Amino acid sequence: MIAIDRAVRFEEVDAAGIVFFAHFYAYCHEAMERLFDGVPGGYVGLITKRKIGFPAVHTEADFKAPLRYGDTARIEAGIAKLGETSCNMRYRVVRARDAVLAATIEHVTVASDLVQMTKLRLPDDVRAALAPHLLA
Amino acid sequence: MIAIDRAVRFEEVDAAGIVFFAHFYAYCHEAMERLFDGVPGGYVGLITKRKIGFPAVHTEADFKAPLRYGDTARIEAGIAKLGETSCNMRYRVVRARDAVLAATIEHVTVASDLVQMTKLRLPDDVRAALAPHLLA
Amino acid sequence: MIAIDRAVRFEEVDAAGIVFFAHFYAYCHEAMERLFDGVPGGYVGLITKRKIGFPAVHTEADFKAPLRYGDTARIEAGIAKLGETSCNMRYRVVRARDAVLAATIEHVTVASDLVQMTKLRLPDDVRAALAPHLLA
Amino acid sequence: MIAIDRAVRFEEVDAAGIVFFAHFYAYCHEAMERLFDGVPGGYVGLITKRKIGFPAVHTEADFKAPLRYGDTARIEAGIAKLGETSCNMRYRVVRARDAVLAATIEHVTVASDLVQMTKLRLPDDVRAALAPHLLA
Repeated sequence: MIAIDRAVRFEEVDAAGIVFFAHFYAYCHEAMERLFDGVPGGYVGLITKRKIGFPAVHTEADFKAPLRYGDTARIEAGIAKLGETSCNMRYRVVRARDAVLAATIEHVTVASDLVQMTKLRLPDDVRAALAPHLLA
Repeated sequence: MIAIDRAVRFEEVDAAGIVFFAHFYAYCHEAMERLFDGVPGGYVGLITKRKIGFPAVHTEADFKAPLRYGDTARIEAGIAKLGETSCNMRYRVVRARDAVLAATIEHVTVASDLVQMTKLRLPDDVRAALAPHLLA
Repeated sequence: MIAIDRAVRFEEVDAAGIVFFAHFYAYCHEAMERLFDGVPGGYVGLITKRKIGFPAVHTEADFKAPLRYGDTARIEAGIAKLGETSCNMRYRVVRARDAVLAATIEHVTVASDLVQMTKLRLPDDVRAALAPHLLA
Repeated sequence: MIAIDRAVRFEEVDAAGIVFFAHFYAYCHEAMERLFDGVPGGYVGLITKRKIGFPAVHTEADFKAPLRYGDTARIEAGIAKLGETSCNMRYRVVRARDAVLAATIEHVTVASDLVQMTKLRLPDDVRAALAPHLLA
């Protein structure tokens, strides 16, 4: 499990005055990338050098409390399950100022060849880097 | 049910070269707003004049095929269920050039007083405007 | 000269309640792409097939009036100057409901090989497609 | 002068594979907010409590080198001039890995009452907080 703190940006609220719900996924993606830090070159290297990515095939989210400009989101990211080709990420987004749970998100990704857009067996080094983040 | 065509924008792809998954929710939100066109002033009026919004409390998405720059997304939006305070939207995102299904999304919203951030019984005029969009 | 109408999106306002100033450039880019419609495959084809793009090298903007959720921006786009390798675009962003000028923007771009990231002489077909949009 | 390091996000590149030029302004805005840290509550407090903002009235930018996914932008922000109601910010955006200058940006803002959308004399505490960031 890893955690990052991410300040809500000035331009991330919507006309209702709260963080636009789609941005929660972007916040989680930022945390997700850190899960790959054990791979040489990190997520950046996978994407830009090896042309391997992890597109979402399924997501589920429960939104519990809003975030506003001035808030910081604490995003906790871990791996719920590692399959042959898939990796299920799980996130908790917590409002830092009062520790209120803002959202929980499940995010199923599939290792993919970005050139052919076909799924791949999880490369061994990637599996090894992700395994320590498996949630109990 | 309503449908809108929405061209993928130049800046909506990610470093993997496909539309960033979070943007699918923004596409659906654009379609969702049209479901409220039968309310006087539309969704804009609800938000800006009556301070009533429909924040997401739950979402589920299945991503089937990528969208790229140059693609147009056809977003079909309907109502799966109208509750006392909640409204369940359902979307299909279709890649216009080949009619391939790109994603299906469920989006549960709750009518909310945006000032107090408390849930509201669905106003009668809103219920009446949404009802024709109920999916069979 | 071409003009497009572009509704402000729900998520494009900022914590000050007005369209975030950076989004004006994105609005203009949408209009700019239309200036290339006379090229086979349009701007999409240039970018994705021929790997030719028009990155900005200089911009200047004057912001005159805010846009809000519910507003529609009318973006007028034309070409101020065609150089050997450069193309100067000029935009007026008008608030549709009251015809108030919201912004004027100058946008100097350079035809570029996106693989080498080197500048290119404007291809003849591109020059021919852009020429009709030259402003008096 | 202040400086922040800001990693390019996965979703901030465009179909040309480089950071979309409009995002440079958002990067600078992030740095700009730090210039107000000496005001009680910071920029957040100004916006959300005192309803005072600093909308852009003019910007000028020169783009020198692209940023890509994997790059970190170092944004240096300072004040070029403090007027009665205006504040001219100046930024340099540097690509951290090789210290190449990516962009220089001028950003003229006007202190504004966000409720009335009228300009304001720079509040004394704001002027005092900004003055140390005046560039020579």
